[in-house]
Amino acid sequence: MDKPIPCSFAQTLGAFASGTETPREFLDACIDEIEEREGDVQAFTFLQLDAARAAADASTQRWEEGSPLSAIDGMPIGVKDVIETADMPTQMGSGLFEGWSPGFDSASVHALREAGAIIVGKTVTTEFAATRPGPTRNPYDLARTPGGSSSGSAAAVGCGMLAGGLGTQVVGSIIRPASYCGVVGFKPSLGGINRGGSHDYMSQSCQGVLAATLEDAWQMAIEIVMRAGGDPGYPGLVGPAVAPDAVKPGTLAFLETPGLEIATPAARAALEEALENLRRAGVTIVTRRDSKALAALEDALHETLPLTRQINAWESRWPLNTYVDRDVSKLSKGMVDRLHEAEAMNVEDYRARLVRRDEIRALFAVLRHEAAACITLSAPDVAPVGIEATGNPIFAVQASLLGVPALTLPVATLGGLPLGLQAIGYLNEDAALFSTAAFVQGTVGDIAIDCEKS
Amino acid sequence: MDKPIPCSFAQTLGAFASGTETPREFLDACIDEIEEREGDVQAFTFLQLDAARAAADASTQRWEEGSPLSAIDGMPIGVKDVIETADMPTQMGSGLFEGWSPGFDSASVHALREAGAIIVGKTVTTEFAATRPGPTRNPYDLARTPGGSSSGSAAAVGCGMLAGGLGTQVVGSIIRPASYCGVVGFKPSLGGINRGGSHDYMSQSCQGVLAATLEDAWQMAIEIVMRAGGDPGYPGLVGPAVAPDAVKPGTLAFLETPGLEIATPAARAALEEALENLRRAGVTIVTRRDSKALAALEDALHETLPLTRQINAWESRWPLNTYVDRDVSKLSKGMVDRLHEAEAMNVEDYRARLVRRDEIRALFAVLRHEAAACITLSAPDVAPVGIEATGNPIFAVQASLLGVPALTLPVATLGGLPLGLQAIGYLNEDAALFSTAAFVQGTVGDIAIDCEKS
Repeated sequence: MDKPIPCSFAQTLGAFASGTETPREFLDACIDEIEEREGDVQAFTFLQLDAARAAADASTQRWEEGSPLSAIDGMPIGVKDVIETADMPTQMGSGLFEGWSPGFDSASVHALREAGAIIVGKTVTTEFAATRPGPTRNPYDLARTPGGSSSGSAAAVGCGMLAGGLGTQVVGSIIRPASYCGVVGFKPSLGGINRGGSHDYMSQSCQGVLAATLEDAWQMAIEIVMRAGGDPGYPGLVGPAVAPDAVKPGTLAFLETPGLEIATPAARAALEEALENLRRAGVTIVTRRDSKALAALEDALHETLPLTRQINAWESRWPLNTYVDRDVSKLSKGMVDRLHEAEAMNVEDYRARLVRRDEIRALFAVLRHEAAACITLSAPDVAPVGIEATGNPIFAVQASLLGVPALTLPVATLGGLPLGLQAIGYLNEDAALFSTAAFVQGTVGDIAIDCEKS
Repeated sequence: MDKPIPCSFAQTLGAFASGTETPREFLDACIDEIEEREGDVQAFTFLQLDAARAAADASTQRWEEGSPLSAIDGMPIGVKDVIETADMPTQMGSGLFEGWSPGFDSASVHALREAGAIIVGKTVTTEFAATRPGPTRNPYDLARTPGGSSSGSAAAVGCGMLAGGLGTQVVGSIIRPASYCGVVGFKPSLGGINRGGSHDYMSQSCQGVLAATLEDAWQMAIEIVMRAGGDPGYPGLVGPAVAPDAVKPGTLAFLETPGLEIATPAARAALEEALENLRRAGVTIVTRRDSKALAALEDALHETLPLTRQINAWESRWPLNTYVDRDVSKLSKGMVDRLHEAEAMNVEDYRARLVRRDEIRALFAVLRHEAAACITLSAPDVAPVGIEATGNPIFAVQASLLGVPALTLPVATLGGLPLGLQAIGYLNEDAALFSTAAFVQGTVGDIAIDCEKS
């Protein structure tokens, strides 16, 4: 099997403008990949190729007329199947929603269409974007998970079936699958992209994007936000109308999350090499040994996973209780257990968790004065073997709890399988994070650790 | 026509406990009112009386066994028709949603059922809880509007067809109709009641309650919050498990909103009498002439209506754009105009409005050091004649923009028609507002202004 190659959309815009390539040709290349790989990878719950071809033809015409609707006009995109679409079912990885359609597009999907993007299909999600996986396989190794919960978007972008995917993250659901599938994953600041019409209600939930490059990820996100804003009451993703240029950071913080304890030697070696490359380029790397603030944060981060689980449980009491009323036999044990955990809590317990989350967020915010961003792994290892679980979210959950922007950069391979390097920024400074990440990606280069597959 | 008498549920609990009255009898009295008045008042879009009777029988049995589920076990409640219900359609006052049902209860409705409350039916809302009225008439005078957008809940509680109603408010949609229909209306602090499954997405939107008494309003709200919490990420309504006792405030601020300029002489006379009664009881009433902070706030409040309109417009861009895609002929001109206003804005315009809103909220928050609550009218007059418009929201919108709790108290009648006195409190101090309001209601008494009907 050849190494899958995610396709960059932004790099093709010049060819569209000059007429040497068309959006229809770009889409056809994606459809070729779909026809070749989808039978194995199973990234989609629904495909509408004819509608996509018609949309690509319309986009081609706009480019030919010199009047594209935006810099993502013609970009083939897949929509995680918890996000509503007018013309396709939204099934949320649950038998309870088999064939269900609300009849309306989500805020983000409507914005993408306004911008001329091509909605190719719905992509596999775990059950209600939580734990129980769908059928998707990792395009780098079909024996492995693509990660979750944005499984299909990551896998499809990872092998060039799509140029971009919408995802959502409340624990690790963008960063983890993007890391496993060798693509850029972007979870914005809290409220950065309007969640209207997306079934991700939780207070840490964010809608985000998966794409081949930083440029594509930014463009997709900002085009949505220019048209649909962020969540009501939030400023939404703040930044320029095109991807920010790379900016060399003076200092980066090496975030030693609890995940490092379980990271494999190869993963640690990749991280070390990345840090060493950055140091060699003149970036100061601070660690807990240099910074009391960083040490205090890292100590607190040991609570992140249980705190997130409890907050998510309370916030899932509804609608899970209505799902159980409807047909408990269609829910996984994990979902029923989550409801039981919620029902063992009361609103006071929940408030206490919110207070603690705010305290940890405050510990993070002060780092802003010490480092341009935090750097760590995106996962403890490459995608694990098996598709009955979606891997460990211990690295990805940190930015979810903190409510801050995170990017995973596909800069490393271990034994040929991708692993992401994660950059974590500050609230509503997503554009600065992109600038830092662009420098990091350019500086770190491709790290190939030669090892046995784990 | 007799004066409609809203029915207090809390005052009947002793009779339920002792067995001298049953929830079934209480419901039957409501149904008698429905049978007598609903043909004229038209408060409901859907009634399920048989299911309600069965639920009341089950409640009766629980009370007889000495094991009611809560202090609202058996309370007959109506649900504003933007809030989803599993067993009844949710039509949002729009032909676009005729017969539509999501198949699941909203968070609040599920919580009410868990607490043993009886869901009697869905109540009329204006189109998408905005401007275009439904068919509902004011139970005090069928020639007049009940107010909106929680029209049906207010009218039904106002004439004892229900003991309580769920409502929503983003401009004046609880306080205004409650004022016009002679009931208590409670708009909680931002995020106070979980909006899950309710089609009120905007950043100022709150779910709230309408009831005959302060006691009932508190109990209904707190029973929901104990089971469903507030909006994700918010503490939710904070306070005791039973309605707070009356507490005499040292000082109240008389909030001279822009609405006073258009208040009728009779309305101003009622307000003056209320303030005089409070002064006589030893409460200090501060005004803009005593307090620079209050004067600064009041000056800023002149922006409230346009600022709210602009914020709501941007936040309605979605889903209105999807509704237009579906069938623009089924939307009112007001909704289409709102979409056009949104499309003339960009996300930067919206951010500027949020910043200004935050500034005004900060001006309000400092009043906390000067007064226990603010007092003003709930509307410039009694309900206007005609049902083609729902009245002026200029008094009610203030607390919506501020994000703080507000109560309207049915203490005045002008020429026999109700007008509410409004008490506005501080963020997440809803319980203190109830204590102050209970004192105000007890002290002000019934104010009857003898005047020609306006």
